[in-house]
Amino acid sequence: MKKVKVYITLKESVLDPQGQAVAGALHNLGYKEVQDVRIGKYIELEVEASDGPIETQIEAMCEKLLANTVIENYRYEIEEGVTQ
Amino acid sequence: MKKVKVYITLKESVLDPQGQAVAGALHNLGYKEVQDVRIGKYIELEVEASDGPIETQIEAMCEKLLANTVIENYRYEIEEGVTQ
Repeated sequence: MKKVKVYITLKESVLDPQGQAVAGALHNLGYKEVQDVRIGKYIELEVEASDGPIETQIEAMCEKLLANTVIENYRYEIEEGVTQ
Repeated sequence: MKKVKVYITLKESVLDPQGQAVAGALHNLGYKEVQDVRIGKYIELEVEASDGPIETQIEAMCEKLLANTVIENYRYEIEEGVTQ
């Protein structure tokens, strides 16, 4: 069993209204030093070890379902040797 | 200017219907080796360097606004020396 952490972020060129709303709320709470907020997704997958390379499969899952690659970037980390 | 990465995850004991839906969709796409999916939030903050310890401020922001500490855990990383 491997744990895969996927981070999905909006591309730099894409507006992030949710992030702007959070930045506004932080300013209202008095945290004026916050300049910018970008909100993304963090997905933890537990994947059974298979014969093929897991990287290929994770990338396919991201491309097909997890990320919208038109407006989002993704990166992932694989934690090896996580036992059940 | 420092970049702070905040990871917000549901506590282990809390059900994650969104994650279950994604797991079901991955199974339907043929990725049967995916055992579990948990979905969280990933927030990037750009914070101006201040005199006080930034950790205290980030924790206060998480407690007050970014995370719902009843059902969510948070952790953060601070990237030092990010210049404008």
